[in-house]
Amino acid sequence: MSVSFPKGFLAAGVASGLKASGKKDVALVQNLGPEKSAAAVFTTNRCKANPILWSEQVIKDGVAEAVLLNSGGANCYTGAQGFQTTHASAELVAELLGVAASDVVVCSTGLIGEQLNQEKLFAGVKEAFSELSTEGGESAALAIMTTDTVPKLSERTSPQGYKIGGMAKGAGMLAPGLATMLVVITTDASLDSGSLDACLRQATRVSFDRLDSDGCMSTNDQVTLMASGASGVSPELTEFTQLLTSLCEELALKLLDDAEGASHSIHITTSGAASEEDAVEVSRSVARNNLFKAAIYGNDPNWGRILAAVGVTKAEFDPYNIDVSMNGVLISAKGEPANDRSLVDLHDKRVDVLINLNAGEHAATIVTNDLTHEYVTENSEYSS
Amino acid sequence: MSVSFPKGFLAAGVASGLKASGKKDVALVQNLGPEKSAAAVFTTNRCKANPILWSEQVIKDGVAEAVLLNSGGANCYTGAQGFQTTHASAELVAELLGVAASDVVVCSTGLIGEQLNQEKLFAGVKEAFSELSTEGGESAALAIMTTDTVPKLSERTSPQGYKIGGMAKGAGMLAPGLATMLVVITTDASLDSGSLDACLRQATRVSFDRLDSDGCMSTNDQVTLMASGASGVSPELTEFTQLLTSLCEELALKLLDDAEGASHSIHITTSGAASEEDAVEVSRSVARNNLFKAAIYGNDPNWGRILAAVGVTKAEFDPYNIDVSMNGVLISAKGEPANDRSLVDLHDKRVDVLINLNAGEHAATIVTNDLTHEYVTENSEYSS
Repeated sequence: MSVSFPKGFLAAGVASGLKASGKKDVALVQNLGPEKSAAAVFTTNRCKANPILWSEQVIKDGVAEAVLLNSGGANCYTGAQGFQTTHASAELVAELLGVAASDVVVCSTGLIGEQLNQEKLFAGVKEAFSELSTEGGESAALAIMTTDTVPKLSERTSPQGYKIGGMAKGAGMLAPGLATMLVVITTDASLDSGSLDACLRQATRVSFDRLDSDGCMSTNDQVTLMASGASGVSPELTEFTQLLTSLCEELALKLLDDAEGASHSIHITTSGAASEEDAVEVSRSVARNNLFKAAIYGNDPNWGRILAAVGVTKAEFDPYNIDVSMNGVLISAKGEPANDRSLVDLHDKRVDVLINLNAGEHAATIVTNDLTHEYVTENSEYSS
Repeated sequence: MSVSFPKGFLAAGVASGLKASGKKDVALVQNLGPEKSAAAVFTTNRCKANPILWSEQVIKDGVAEAVLLNSGGANCYTGAQGFQTTHASAELVAELLGVAASDVVVCSTGLIGEQLNQEKLFAGVKEAFSELSTEGGESAALAIMTTDTVPKLSERTSPQGYKIGGMAKGAGMLAPGLATMLVVITTDASLDSGSLDACLRQATRVSFDRLDSDGCMSTNDQVTLMASGASGVSPELTEFTQLLTSLCEELALKLLDDAEGASHSIHITTSGAASEEDAVEVSRSVARNNLFKAAIYGNDPNWGRILAAVGVTKAEFDPYNIDVSMNGVLISAKGEPANDRSLVDLHDKRVDVLINLNAGEHAATIVTNDLTHEYVTENSEYSS
């Protein structure tokens, strides 16, 4: 159901031929209202794709009627012609739906530097329009996949009587400030765009922004949130943010679990930090350390590589008073080995690393995956 | 010849049993003088090994009589016992050479978190002492290898009549602020320790610090420079720095060429930068991008991944006015594709990437290697 789970939303996903495989590659999500509030967060990469440049303008007034998404091409570094493709596709959606093009968000994913085939894209848009339905959420989720092996959907229902639905794609290039990641979230709660924006930023800051698969940030990342108000419920903001965060966390973990070629999902928690920023910096430094990630692939609880990664950060700590545990076993304490590393069992997919800086009361978790032969294979053979 | 190439230096390398393989693992380099000036640069990792903590103190007065090096164990995160091992080994060298322990530099490389076997180490030190000779440079270079496949040596002779010799080890965890890298450089020029320090910092800043194999910084890196004055020549500092830099660059490229599992050596030059710092930041960001590095392994000139890596930096540029060339072919210009990417031939080991930011007059090159199956294998199967 995903994005068509809340009241007031239609969705569709179709195959237009943008993907050589012939799989679904164009998705459309429409907000029927009565309200049309929207908010979005975008990649912080300065090299932005054309749909990002377009959508940043669309979202400024806090109103969106629809989101058009395509896989099979990122429409990034495609110059004036590429921007015209994005613009024209928004115009076409607007014409079909009887709305303004300036209220149509556009997202693209795929290879950088290749023009999208306009003829195929526009035919796909028309077909998607004709297939819009309250049952279309899963089709839409399928149409935004690239190297994803499964569609990612999530739903929440509030006891207050409103719903949230979401879909996500992304299987690599997952890094902070958003990943190669397209996410659309819908709700039938009644919320103005300012509230939506605040709730979305709070939710993504502790979910998608804490996902760091390979430290590589995409040019096309976007998370869009639309509210139809169709439930008639004006939720309490704290409760809405909590529910939204839980949905974002579920989608983020689904992205992680489907990360390209990964054999372990690694949860790196830094505790005892002087600030939340310190905890994030330390966990992220470990999450980006190729030597540590390769060791985990080899089922080697190599804590020396963890401490070497901690040591390059600016966080507050005494380097000889750090405790490191893996899967519940304390393996280094106060600058020395603790329990024997052979006690750590790394055969399960999930790995928990706990780093206690003994420098304060703050904590944060970054989730990542290991560095595997399959990651190298996928990313040396697949142009994206 | 390496470190025993200049006059006034003896060296030796022996097998003490620290390495399970039985290969050479203890090296000793002695400065016979008449001068004993020395300088060193150390890892900027805050999690420092015991030999780093020791050697930082030794070098403070600008005098060193000898350098003791071992492979087969990093002596890092080994607590008070580990520090005592370093201290005692320096005392032993001092006793054998008839010098002060506070003038004996110590370097270690290998696995973090394991105690060195003192009995083996001390026996190795005695044997190395007994084998010290003007022919011992190559043996010493062999004794500091870990996953290196070849010893790294370099020599220079100045028309002014003095010599410089050097040896290096390191084959992974190569990153800025120094790599998993031990380097000893000797010269028979006559130079005070202040001058040596200034020349060494200038030389390493544009050589070893521009090497970024996998973005991982070690806990044990050290470059030590000793001057014997035995040539009687007091060199002009600019000329000495130039010769020293050229030797450091040669050793750095030898480290790169022997990087764990690499199939390409990639030279990433950023030109047209507003500052040298900007050029270094941009080149380094590309050098650390796993997706780009995996693409090169697959002989795929994926320039989109280059621009995505450029876009996460804070350097001054207009993202839609950047030119990217690979092996002489301009593949992206002004935010659009230029020549067809298929024109780029990536079958040679060396790859040259040129990024022109069109924002100024500065340039810098970072050298790195690709991300390969072999890198993953070596670093998932070898504990270091």
